[in-house]
Parts: sequence; structure tokens; C-alpha cells
Amino acid sequence: MTSEIVTTGISEPDTQKIPYDLKNFKLSKILSNNTSRKTVVVVGSFPDLSEDDLALIILEKSAFTEENVSTDSKKSFFANLTTVENDLLNNIYGSFRCFPSENDLNGIKTTVVYPATPKHIQKYSMRPKFIIRETPELYEEVTLPFLTKSQFSLDWVYNILEHKQELERIVSEDPDPANGFVLVPDLKWDGKAVETLYLLAITHQRNIKSLRDLNASHIPLLKNIRESGIKAIQEKYGIEESRLRIYFHYQPSFYHLHIHFNPLSNEAPGIFCEKSHLLDTVISNLEMVSDYYKKATLSFVAYEGQELLDIYRKKGVISGPLNEKNGKSEVDEPNAKKLKLDK
Amino acid sequence: MTSEIVTTGISEPDTQKIPYDLKNFKLSKILSNNTSRKTVVVVGSFPDLSEDDLALIILEKSAFTEENVSTDSKKSFFANLTTVENDLLNNIYGSFRCFPSENDLNGIKTTVVYPATPKHIQKYSMRPKFIIRETPELYEEVTLPFLTKSQFSLDWVYNILEHKQELERIVSEDPDPANGFVLVPDLKWDGKAVETLYLLAITHQRNIKSLRDLNASHIPLLKNIRESGIKAIQEKYGIEESRLRIYFHYQPSFYHLHIHFNPLSNEAPGIFCEKSHLLDTVISNLEMVSDYYKKATLSFVAYEGQELLDIYRKKGVISGPLNEKNGKSEVDEPNAKKLKLDK
Repeated sequence: MTSEIVTTGISEPDTQKIPYDLKNFKLSKILSNNTSRKTVVVVGSFPDLSEDDLALIILEKSAFTEENVSTDSKKSFFANLTTVENDLLNNIYGSFRCFPSENDLNGIKTTVVYPATPKHIQKYSMRPKFIIRETPELYEEVTLPFLTKSQFSLDWVYNILEHKQELERIVSEDPDPANGFVLVPDLKWDGKAVETLYLLAITHQRNIKSLRDLNASHIPLLKNIRESGIKAIQEKYGIEESRLRIYFHYQPSFYHLHIHFNPLSNEAPGIFCEKSHLLDTVISNLEMVSDYYKKATLSFVAYEGQELLDIYRKKGVISGPLNEKNGKSEVDEPNAKKLKLDK
Repeated sequence: MTSEIVTTGISEPDTQKIPYDLKNFKLSKILSNNTSRKTVVVVGSFPDLSEDDLALIILEKSAFTEENVSTDSKKSFFANLTTVENDLLNNIYGSFRCFPSENDLNGIKTTVVYPATPKHIQKYSMRPKFIIRETPELYEEVTLPFLTKSQFSLDWVYNILEHKQELERIVSEDPDPANGFVLVPDLKWDGKAVETLYLLAITHQRNIKSLRDLNASHIPLLKNIRESGIKAIQEKYGIEESRLRIYFHYQPSFYHLHIHFNPLSNEAPGIFCEKSHLLDTVISNLEMVSDYYKKATLSFVAYEGQELLDIYRKKGVISGPLNEKNGKSEVDEPNAKKLKLDK
């Protein structure tokens, strides 16, 4: 979510001055509130600085550290309890709200974008999502023409395949033009913590856009990626095959065939059943029906604001009337206050 | 110094006394630490009370409320900033660690189980998970004999179908013995917040254990559940078809065919691609190949400690040597301190 923001100041010392005082922030709208992850995103302004410039602020409660719960540490939760509110006491179960005095426990990670562009605000706004049941006919009539017309440049992919970029990041490679691939870290991965490992296998073949283009002739390619990818990960990171999730996205974020690898313990974005397809299932499907992906109905998810969703909506494939004004429903914004932007 | 205890029970006043002082807790082990959800589970003891009794404590940072970020409130994050640490300032991006003085922002939900049984501790221990690639042969040889032998009683399901239990909870019903079903709230749902809606459709047919038993003859049943379920949810909860995730689990938690319904916005447990199968995909598969689920390789996830995993492991299907002592790897316990239990 915050990939373009580097959050640890290991770089050179800051000489820039902080141009705003957070105490002067004036809220316009809560863009999203994730009550599981304990993050909230708000937009507003610093009226003392400008009436027009928008500020986007992301607040996130900090995770617990070992020191926070160690009972040997003077900074621990237990040593620093002040008020304890008792909610419930029933047999062996007790529930409390505790307020520690130690700062380290109360830290809130605060990310500020100022001035923020409408693009920043759109990125952090919770957008409703819709499931589209794409039959083979709808793929041919709607999705394929759209993605042919609006395809982003794949130069960055070709740069990796041709060793013009990210050469030092390559985890493993098989140069075979038919069955070969390059295995590289996904940008989401910090390259360090093995528990959040996230790699992409990108095929050398350039004519396979997505799952939809696969047929039985690609089984050797898929099995090669499977076996070689597993072997490389086992050797380099010590993670066994049985601990790996290996899958495709549909729709993918770019239309050059690629396969995601991460440990089951990594609850990576986009691994839900409406978006991801296990490589093993894909191989099994192609072994059963050689043109399975020419015949299958594939569901996928589209977000409000995506052009493809609008095209499907115009075709009448998305059921139900939307609130035309903002395209949102209560379901997606349980905790969001709907305030007008000052702008 | 002892901590001040305030009782905020909305229920009848507690007459039970809190038998422990959290300040005296002594940590033995961190059982799990979820850095996304900001929860940590620890086990230890209260040595002043007993050397033998174990205490299980779950700490969870609180989610943000509207009041926490409203700039009109005196209790807001912005009004109560004390220390602000600057991590980074780069162009329009700033990253800080802030420490609010307001208690409401610093609350930590604390759940105590004391004395805790080994079962409590097992429940909250992070258990490694493994993916098993179940071929049709392995299903027949391993999974089917296991689940036939160890099947839990389905009486609670039959009680619902026969209106002996949960009658008032039924959302919709079709009594047809072949294609009928009962739609009821899942126990995970509080029955209130539409954004976390979670319903189960349970078939009146009693001889379908799971996905594996489905064939083309069941397409009318599946389509009936799809259409009638969508209609009932739209009428009762106002959620459109295009906002719904409708799916099976494999392996299911009980072996009587049932289908899960929840809104896409609900990131419900178990919706990952290694566990869940969209109903639309299942229908498409059966329309393509009438005995698809007799021929398919179906991957599923098993947890350390599950008997089925041990059986597969003895068959040599789970790759890679495990650390036999505790069956855990680094991947699943990135932040867990491995301490021996005092006991």
C-alpha cells in the first residue's frame, strides 16, 4: 500500500524542515478504516498553511515487539500498566482494557502526504469491488478487445528478461525460449524477511497474456516453472514445497504470463479465491481438458473506477443499480464518515 | 505500585473478584504474534499465586474510532500529540512515530484465561500449515477412509434441516428433497453488521460429503442454491449478486454439502485460493466435464497436529524433513520467542 514511501530513516540525515504541525490538521473525510489491521486513512488540510492544499494522513497502530511483552523488560506492557478497566469476569475468562504508560507501546505510525494529489486520495479511498462472471464469450467480446486497446507497456518486463534491469535481483533463471523463465522478487517484498517472501516467475515466452491463453501445449512450461521455482526457493530460502502457495492472478496486473510464489504463512494481498488460481489446479485442468481455459467461465474482481468495470456495466453484466452519485454502498464503508472534501 | 482497577461492566455488577494482578505475570513463551492485526498471545504464570497454573493472555491494540480522528473532538489523535519522532521527510512524503497522551487511543484489549488448559494453549499456538496436492487416487486411498472413520456427528446439521434447532435463524428455505436447502447465518456472524454478513446454505440431500462427490447431476441443485440464495440476500440485506463471494471450502469443516455466502468486502477466514472454490467455477467445471471432481487434483491445507496431515506425512506425500521436535519452522513464527514452558 505504501510502496513508494520509505519509512526508516537509514538514509542520509534530513535537512528538510517539517512544513506542518500535525496539531493543526483539520479533518475533511475518513477515507477508510481497517478495524482488523488498526489503520485509518484521513484527508484534510492545514488551514494555517493553505486552504486549498490537501493532506493525506495514514495512522497505523504499531505491532507488538518481544520487548513489549517480555516480563524482564522495564518497558514491558505488564510493568507499565496504569489503568485497568474490567469488562468481564466469567469463570476462568477475564476481559480488560489496559492503558500502559510506556511510550513504546503507544506509538502510532503516521504517514503524511502533503500536498496530496487527487491520485493519492483515490489510491487510499476504499473502492467497492464487484465480481464479474466472465464467460468465454464475454472474454472475446469485452475483456480481450479492452486489454488489447489499453495494454500498458511491458518494457519493464522485457528489461528484466533481457538483463537490462534488476539483473542482480534474479533468484534463478532458465534461458530456454519455450519453457524458460526468470524468478525475481516482487516489489512488495523487502527482500529480507523469509516469512513474507514474494517472488514472481516471468516466462521468456512473450505471447501468453494470461490464464485464458493457456492450453495443454503449455504444460511442460508450467511444470518446469513449478519444479525449478520450488527447487530454487528451497535452496536459497529453505522453504519446502509443502509450505508454498504458487498461483496466478486473474485478471493479472500485467498481461505477460507470470506466476506468484509465497509461503502459506504470508497472507499476501490478492490471494482470495475470487482472484487467485493455484498452479496445481491449472495444470490439473489442462491435463483433463486441453483447451480448458478457452471453455471455462472465470470470475474476476473489478474495482469501482476501473474502465473495464464500466464497460461491463454498460453491457448490463453487472447486476443491480448503483448509487450513481458516488458509486459506493454502505457495505464497503462501514466506518467511513461521509464528509465533503473542502476542495 | 498496584494498578488501579475500574469496573465497566454493562452487565450485572461483578461479584467475582479478579484473582490475579497482571503486573505479577511472568512470561514463559510468546505463542504467536500477528504483526498485521496487532495481536500477540503469550503464556506464563502468576508465581505469587501458583507455580503450576498457566495463564494465557491475548493482547490486541484497539481499532481507530471516528472520535479518535475527528478534529472537533478533544479526545482526538491530533489534539493529544505529545512526542512526534520524524523517521523520514522526502519531498511530499513524511513519516513519523507519534505518541498521543489520550488514554482512549492507547487502550489494549486484554483477555486472560487463568488457569488455562493445554487445549487453550494449543488453540492459540501458531500452527504451521502445509499444502497437500490430493490426486483422485490419494482421495480414495487416504482422505476418504480417514473421513469415513473419523467423521464427527452431523446431528447439529440434521437438527437445523428438521427445524429442531435454529428455526428462528433461518433466512430462507427450499424444502425440495433433491434441490432444496436451508440458508442460515454462520456462527461467525454477529447477525447485525451487513458488511460482515456470513451465511451458509446447507443442502437437504444428505449423501453429498464435499466437492469430491459432485457430478453433473447436481448442477440443478447448485444453480438453485445460487439463484435462491442471491435472491434472499438481496431482499433481506440489500446486497447485490455482484458484491457476493459464493464458495465451497475444501476440505470442509463438516462433511455435509454446504456453500458459504459473504460480501466481497468481508475478508472472512479461509477465503484464500488454497482453501476456497467459487460456486461459479464449480458449476462451470461440471458443465465442462460431468465427473470433473472425480478426476481433478484438489489441493488443500492441513495444520500441524491434524491427524490427516500425519497420515499423509507417513505416506511420504508431504515433502521435506520437519524439525521433529516441535514440528515448526521459522516461517511461521517470525516473532515468537522460543522459550520452554515453566511447567
